[in-house]
Amino acid sequence: MVHAETSTGVLQPLAEASQLAKQYEALFLVDTVTSLGGHEVVVDDWGIDICYSGSQKCISCPPGLAPFTANQTALATLQARTHKVQSWYLDLSLLSAYWSASRFYHHTAPISMIYAFHEALALIAEEGLEARIQRHLRHGLALQTGLEAMGLTLHAQEGYRLSVLTSVRIPSGVDDLQVRKKLLNEFGIEIGGGLGPLKGQIWRIGLMGHSSSTENVLLLLSTLEKLLVEEGYSVEPGAGMIAAIQTLRGK
Amino acid sequence: MVHAETSTGVLQPLAEASQLAKQYEALFLVDTVTSLGGHEVVVDDWGIDICYSGSQKCISCPPGLAPFTANQTALATLQARTHKVQSWYLDLSLLSAYWSASRFYHHTAPISMIYAFHEALALIAEEGLEARIQRHLRHGLALQTGLEAMGLTLHAQEGYRLSVLTSVRIPSGVDDLQVRKKLLNEFGIEIGGGLGPLKGQIWRIGLMGHSSSTENVLLLLSTLEKLLVEEGYSVEPGAGMIAAIQTLRGK
Repeated sequence: MVHAETSTGVLQPLAEASQLAKQYEALFLVDTVTSLGGHEVVVDDWGIDICYSGSQKCISCPPGLAPFTANQTALATLQARTHKVQSWYLDLSLLSAYWSASRFYHHTAPISMIYAFHEALALIAEEGLEARIQRHLRHGLALQTGLEAMGLTLHAQEGYRLSVLTSVRIPSGVDDLQVRKKLLNEFGIEIGGGLGPLKGQIWRIGLMGHSSSTENVLLLLSTLEKLLVEEGYSVEPGAGMIAAIQTLRGK
Repeated sequence: MVHAETSTGVLQPLAEASQLAKQYEALFLVDTVTSLGGHEVVVDDWGIDICYSGSQKCISCPPGLAPFTANQTALATLQARTHKVQSWYLDLSLLSAYWSASRFYHHTAPISMIYAFHEALALIAEEGLEARIQRHLRHGLALQTGLEAMGLTLHAQEGYRLSVLTSVRIPSGVDDLQVRKKLLNEFGIEIGGGLGPLKGQIWRIGLMGHSSSTENVLLLLSTLEKLLVEEGYSVEPGAGMIAAIQTLRGK
């Protein structure tokens, strides 16, 4: 299961899903690529057996590494395999021997990436993980309140919204591609389009790691207002900004 | 087949091996991890169907990327597959779609690594590939002549020796680990020990990319002479240095 579902903007209820997995004696594998460093991730408490993430989202490190953890249940399953792993890549049986005291050679590590990751983690420790999660929450909420004040409809259900990625429905009559192109070319802001059945239906706005800032929330809301007006969409001037600032100030 | 065989110091005769592969209608896959950027690698002329390398050896870039090429024969074999590739990693069927005009998303690229690789290639272009190969050859030969002048025996057969990694037999009575520890701790020089049946039998001395320099050849020969003498091995003082310098000067 993907924790932070970036194609829809949904935060999956992992604790509940985990119970279901245990009920069927299945291993519970979770992708926390977009959530780790931005949302609370409590691997053991939530009964996650295998968990991986990425370096480039809320950890704000260059892409290239995937943090990974597996518990004893997962390792026991690995040890009970009756046939060899087919791929050399992420072969945990080989990696376990590398990770063990014997340090049985498996691969050359991407050293520079590991230095970068170490620095990114140091920055997280400096900010404080809890403070960082609160920062993502605050900015996500400000953006969402602002979008709603502009008359837009959020795509994800309340209570299951990500702070790190907001999905919002594109008002009818507004040209998806035109708005995204102008945002990127005129203002240097890249937002995502919808995927699969949601293509042309929603926008996906990320506020991850370093980019989860007051400046980015306000810049997006003000430029989007301008572009929506150009598309013929009616917005009360400044409504989004005012609502966002109120939220940021704790109302 | 591995082109530059680092466990033995042998340069494999690829053109001949390729003919054998063609004779049996096998794809010819070559690992040029240690050779690319240090030895001549002529992928198409040698009939190599699939070739990969690493960034961190003679290309002198941080580790983390693998240059890769596949010819039409290899791609035709891929397209003729009757079952799906099991692993997501290096799934060429998916990567082909990413590489194609449709740019079908496959993975987030390790951007910083790609910048680093670009810079490493620019440095190679600046030096000139042919000049770079000659530099590796010159330093490898100087090291090998020096070691032989010290009475040591090279492990790889003449005519099949790598310039980028020299394997040399450890004289009897000399403590393998003791010498390597002193080299590392006192002089900051790390050389490799033997692997498998060659453990304790040979040393493996790399001169790859940036590290293939006159300074490194002379430093290694002079420090090794000192340490061998401490181990009770009899060396004519300066013999290795003199022979190496003569080779470097073109005799």
